[in-house]
Amino acid sequence: RGIRVGYTPDVLTDATAELSVALLLAVCRRLPEAVEQVKHGGWTTWKPLWMCGYGLSDSTVGIIGLGRIGQAVARRLKPFGVKKFLYTGSRPKPESAAEFEAEFVPLTRLAEESDFVVVTCALTPATQGICNKDFFSRMKKTSVFINTSRGAVVNQEDLYDALAHGQIAAAGLDVTTPEPLPTDHPLLSLKNCVILPHVGSATYATRSTMAVLAANNLLAGLRGEPMPHELLL
Amino acid sequence: RGIRVGYTPDVLTDATAELSVALLLAVCRRLPEAVEQVKHGGWTTWKPLWMCGYGLSDSTVGIIGLGRIGQAVARRLKPFGVKKFLYTGSRPKPESAAEFEAEFVPLTRLAEESDFVVVTCALTPATQGICNKDFFSRMKKTSVFINTSRGAVVNQEDLYDALAHGQIAAAGLDVTTPEPLPTDHPLLSLKNCVILPHVGSATYATRSTMAVLAANNLLAGLRGEPMPHELLL
Repeated sequence: RGIRVGYTPDVLTDATAELSVALLLAVCRRLPEAVEQVKHGGWTTWKPLWMCGYGLSDSTVGIIGLGRIGQAVARRLKPFGVKKFLYTGSRPKPESAAEFEAEFVPLTRLAEESDFVVVTCALTPATQGICNKDFFSRMKKTSVFINTSRGAVVNQEDLYDALAHGQIAAAGLDVTTPEPLPTDHPLLSLKNCVILPHVGSATYATRSTMAVLAANNLLAGLRGEPMPHELLL
Repeated sequence: RGIRVGYTPDVLTDATAELSVALLLAVCRRLPEAVEQVKHGGWTTWKPLWMCGYGLSDSTVGIIGLGRIGQAVARRLKPFGVKKFLYTGSRPKPESAAEFEAEFVPLTRLAEESDFVVVTCALTPATQGICNKDFFSRMKKTSVFINTSRGAVVNQEDLYDALAHGQIAAAGLDVTTPEPLPTDHPLLSLKNCVILPHVGSATYATRSTMAVLAANNLLAGLRGEPMPHELLL
């Protein structure tokens, strides 16, 4: 009560979208696995299907939450030859979707038709645990799941089962429950699951901008003035 | 003499450009290192500059060889907020450069001004070893070097020195000399060097297309007909 709260919206949109695409590409082209093969002698003669992955050309990409970050992800993925964008959320956003000719669909259809699912929604009571057993069971065996929003959007036990049983091809997570994820967590034992330590906004430029904005929020608050970005509940 | 040779051009442009961007993003956002931190307990409490990398927003990207793959890389990088594209090669290519407003510059200026250098040229007598001590010494300490063309374009001893002494920030290589690279090669001891096992074209779709084209070349050759793609020397 009476405690004012500043925050740093918008300034991390680009860095987080960039990291989302980086993680998607790393998972679909199996980069961490390929790096390990080079280090440990797995790279030998040329074999036609060795280390093959799934490309974005002619793919369908489903975005859960077409907000600022979701749109920035779609904008970056478009020139990779994506054939069709789907999105879901609390309501259609025709203005945001127009640039990508993205189609608003129910979560179930997004799961069924997407080759790549990217989660960029806020964590709310409506989104908590929506990527669960039912969701993963509708996805294709060749599809890839990426979450860079909040860990609790995903039911991690259900994701583990889907990955371990080949119900989906692979997953990339920049966010988990809890954070940090314990090093003995079952998801870390899977070759087809890439987990990052919540580095969505981790570029020098972005963290510096966040620091300056946080300082300006603080100074304005101390002076009793309007903050550049104040959380109003 | 008298032996006809078929090949598979064009069909791997998209997959190779995609892998180039995947590798660039993995290096600049330090993905392999971040994955290891998660696995081995390096992920603890939030620290402002931990695992920070270099983002593409407002950057200058230099492309060595603006051919089919170089253009496909530029097209994919553009929506990441790249401020300026530079390119070099045997001659200016105004038609190819127009889409990216890319500026033709000498190799030395490309080295000096680029935040990210991407090598996508052919290996020829003119390009062999051009990324050498002089080249790396002109690059910025914060810049990232990516090679997805052929290993011999790079002088690997000079690259090792530049990476080990902090003359450049990091490198990503999908191609090396020799291939496979011996597992005790000095480049593999560096945290700021990511090496992939020549997986540029390694997607199921692309390798399948390559296989069909190779078979059609072969069948046409056996019939004494023109090959769909014949190497004419």
